[in-house]
Amino acid sequence: MIADRLKLQLDFIVEIDKLKQVLRRTLTINEDRNENDAEHSWHLAAMAVILAEHVTGDPVDVSRVVRMVLVHDIVEIDAGDTYCYSGADPAEKLEREMRAADRLFNMLPAGQADEVRALWDEFEARATPEARYANALDRLQPLLLNYHTDGKTWLKHGVTRDQVLERARPIKDSIPVLWEFIEGLVDQAVTRGILGR
Amino acid sequence: MIADRLKLQLDFIVEIDKLKQVLRRTLTINEDRNENDAEHSWHLAAMAVILAEHVTGDPVDVSRVVRMVLVHDIVEIDAGDTYCYSGADPAEKLEREMRAADRLFNMLPAGQADEVRALWDEFEARATPEARYANALDRLQPLLLNYHTDGKTWLKHGVTRDQVLERARPIKDSIPVLWEFIEGLVDQAVTRGILGR
Repeated sequence: MIADRLKLQLDFIVEIDKLKQVLRRTLTINEDRNENDAEHSWHLAAMAVILAEHVTGDPVDVSRVVRMVLVHDIVEIDAGDTYCYSGADPAEKLEREMRAADRLFNMLPAGQADEVRALWDEFEARATPEARYANALDRLQPLLLNYHTDGKTWLKHGVTRDQVLERARPIKDSIPVLWEFIEGLVDQAVTRGILGR
Repeated sequence: MIADRLKLQLDFIVEIDKLKQVLRRTLTINEDRNENDAEHSWHLAAMAVILAEHVTGDPVDVSRVVRMVLVHDIVEIDAGDTYCYSGADPAEKLEREMRAADRLFNMLPAGQADEVRALWDEFEARATPEARYANALDRLQPLLLNYHTDGKTWLKHGVTRDQVLERARPIKDSIPVLWEFIEGLVDQAVTRGILGR
């Protein structure tokens, strides 16, 4: 007989396969298709490792950042992806995501459910250096993808330079060495006509 | 001016977006489509965190396991995915993957290139408890997916019970508490007619 605890963990592992079905607005580079949340989460986790040396301020626990980005979008299995420029009601979004977090993370055994939930809560609260770094990566990654897919998503939704820079703000706080690069990229995007003025 | 080091890292981050294009034979659950390497790597990384308490023997550094599975398939951007039951020449596969590792990991700045390459070498050598755990996860994940997609990939390629159990062997070594469950799953698969006898 398989232990109950292990059974719950395997059920959770099968359940989160659904993250591969949650589509984002961003396109993957070189393929004309929407990225899904599982791919996005992998990309952030790899970036968390690669860029760690550039985080400003207190040293961050990179392994916690990695765990945080691995689970940060799992709630979207139930709550769906909300486009950042959609003007959706933030309170309604939060309520949907809270319900999703209650159902999904509580599939895990006692103790572990709380640990994973705590990672998600930490990401959402953006109060620790780890959460700020994780959120900065979550802003940087779609920016790179949008730039390298000729701004198709920006153009489709009429997104402007100021909106992108405002959205990218957490990068300035956590990885300031990147900010000049971000401003340059955004300016180039405007010049190339792939981002609104 | 952006630092050279950072520029190389950003180029690498853009390059590895291609992992989302490398298709595996396994199907994702609930969708009739092939899984890609980026999704697969995310799934393994999440599993590494969730199942860590069950690893046998010496305590493992879970954060190194996570980093290992995040990068373990990056060589397939150049080398492509090799189906485990294809009977492909292992020496030829290794040579292709070595060339890929040389090109891809060396896009990173000095020092970091070696660190990431060392993670891949460690995964491939299967000599440390961390690498054994990472390899066990790499065998467990497609087994779960194949079982939960009615064995379509098994049936398509005429895979048998013995082949699957042989392939799953690293699970027995690293996470022995799972072995009875694996045998049960495989027996059920045969009974259901979704895996060859």
